[in-house]
Amino acid sequence: MTNKIKLNHGDGGTKTNELIREIFLKSYGEEGEVCLSDSFVFTTKASKLAYTTDSFVVQPVFFRGGDIGKLAICGTLNDLATAGAKPLYVSAGFIIEEGFDIEALCQIARSMGEVCKRNGVKIVTGDTKVVEKGSADGIFINTSGIGVVSEQYSPCEIEPGDEIIITGTIAEHGTAILLDRYDLAIETNIKSDCCALSHLVSDLEIMLPYIKQMKDPTRGGVATVLNEIAEYAGFNVELLENNIPISPQVKAVNEILGIDPLYLACEGRMLLVVKKGNGSKILQLLEEFCGCREAQMIGCFTADRQKLVYMQTKIGGKRVLPSLESQTVPRIC
Amino acid sequence: MTNKIKLNHGDGGTKTNELIREIFLKSYGEEGEVCLSDSFVFTTKASKLAYTTDSFVVQPVFFRGGDIGKLAICGTLNDLATAGAKPLYVSAGFIIEEGFDIEALCQIARSMGEVCKRNGVKIVTGDTKVVEKGSADGIFINTSGIGVVSEQYSPCEIEPGDEIIITGTIAEHGTAILLDRYDLAIETNIKSDCCALSHLVSDLEIMLPYIKQMKDPTRGGVATVLNEIAEYAGFNVELLENNIPISPQVKAVNEILGIDPLYLACEGRMLLVVKKGNGSKILQLLEEFCGCREAQMIGCFTADRQKLVYMQTKIGGKRVLPSLESQTVPRIC
Repeated sequence: MTNKIKLNHGDGGTKTNELIREIFLKSYGEEGEVCLSDSFVFTTKASKLAYTTDSFVVQPVFFRGGDIGKLAICGTLNDLATAGAKPLYVSAGFIIEEGFDIEALCQIARSMGEVCKRNGVKIVTGDTKVVEKGSADGIFINTSGIGVVSEQYSPCEIEPGDEIIITGTIAEHGTAILLDRYDLAIETNIKSDCCALSHLVSDLEIMLPYIKQMKDPTRGGVATVLNEIAEYAGFNVELLENNIPISPQVKAVNEILGIDPLYLACEGRMLLVVKKGNGSKILQLLEEFCGCREAQMIGCFTADRQKLVYMQTKIGGKRVLPSLESQTVPRIC
Repeated sequence: MTNKIKLNHGDGGTKTNELIREIFLKSYGEEGEVCLSDSFVFTTKASKLAYTTDSFVVQPVFFRGGDIGKLAICGTLNDLATAGAKPLYVSAGFIIEEGFDIEALCQIARSMGEVCKRNGVKIVTGDTKVVEKGSADGIFINTSGIGVVSEQYSPCEIEPGDEIIITGTIAEHGTAILLDRYDLAIETNIKSDCCALSHLVSDLEIMLPYIKQMKDPTRGGVATVLNEIAEYAGFNVELLENNIPISPQVKAVNEILGIDPLYLACEGRMLLVVKKGNGSKILQLLEEFCGCREAQMIGCFTADRQKLVYMQTKIGGKRVLPSLESQTVPRIC
């Protein structure tokens, strides 16, 4: 096999098959798998399924803490988790620029395989297209996923007093991408928080009936995602700045860059809206059983109906956090 | 809304929501739909499901007989049909180049909506990413799909004597793309055969037990797809040139261009491998009930085990049709 992707790797002929067999099946397929079929057929006894999709265009493709492959699988598993679903199957569609390094592609495929293996999920259907040099920026990956929704989870209407939890420190993915993309000469150990959160659905199972909403704060960060939830819920959100978990390094870098970390993406954190009075119990579970030692209760819904997100600042002030209006960092995922 | 796509249409904030509400939901959503959720949840009693994905990078985006949106939905519905599945739900992931025309995007979304409506299928989950000008070529679409597999269909081992049917004239999609891409000054009515074949699963239901394999000959055309099936089956294929349905216009254009139409993509045709002796009956059904008036029995499997595809030519010769080795037309779908 040559060491660069050529146009005929995407023509559906012998070269495409070589790519599938030599790279994709070796990285995340089953021994001896034959992939003649255009559709994967499966049987299931589960009656309630979740289905999601995401495309990934992150730049750079390799970043501190991960790569586009890891991100593509984690992103879809996390979207399934927001629906209270344990992942079953994933699809992977590649759009690759002619000339892309084949060793890089192997590394990306291996990352995908690793996340799948760790989370007991299989990539069962895929597609590869190659476009001419200059018609794409390296590699884009689309994943979709199917999962089984836990019987315990049935999101319901948000009410004043409902509590908001974040499962870990914020803005690490966004900051990592910024540092790598612009090759900023800042000495730091920051890396992306990119990871799969499927385990939360099992680990929190007994408390799922008290969880009213789950959402991973990716593009637009915690502030934008809470605005969406406030809009949907019809009530205001009140955040406590003091409670928002953020590493000193991430805080420092964002201060230097003049960026508000509340608008930067996480790729391994979940926002939970929990029924009033259940926050502490869930927080304890998160800390003790889910390995989320930095989880925090960051605020709650109030009875005000402007659907705004407010923050009680450390110095006792109050400021509105609007929804993201302009790109903080493009191509974050 | 401005008339060109901007980077912040893909940042997950208010502009992204505007795009989803104003274009995607209006084109193929439900009245009053709220799309806060990252995952679509559904219940099903079906025990056997099919799952597939494809990315679409066709160039040009609008072509005689269709556009990338129509193609993206038809392609996925047809992949589900190859598994004997009636489509249930579809996902749509967009990667759009900054500066792409918003009216063109509307037209593409409408095309997607029309095919979905006609085939009783819904787009239930999606994603939009925007990349900087020069980082993609206009628009790329990924679709995935879930369908319910007919209990009547259980593909089984191919044996010598099994017959091969094509449901209509070949190479029309590939030829249409060639004409439009290179703006060839040839006067012709050729247009892409791009269409959804989901109806075949219902229309042929009583004969599904006699169908051993279905495959839509897209990239690489009829010749490449038959090579894949021969490889999998372990037997040779013998085609009859006289029986291969091809319109005189397509034939003429391909002669001028020096291209073999057996290697050009169809996007609305199905190849069926049927149990020996059942070809005529299925052909009759295709003609009378499925509107496939140009369907033909084009060959059969023989007892030879070289896994080659031969063609009996019109002048009495015999030639091998190898699998596609080099790109005939890139970015055909």
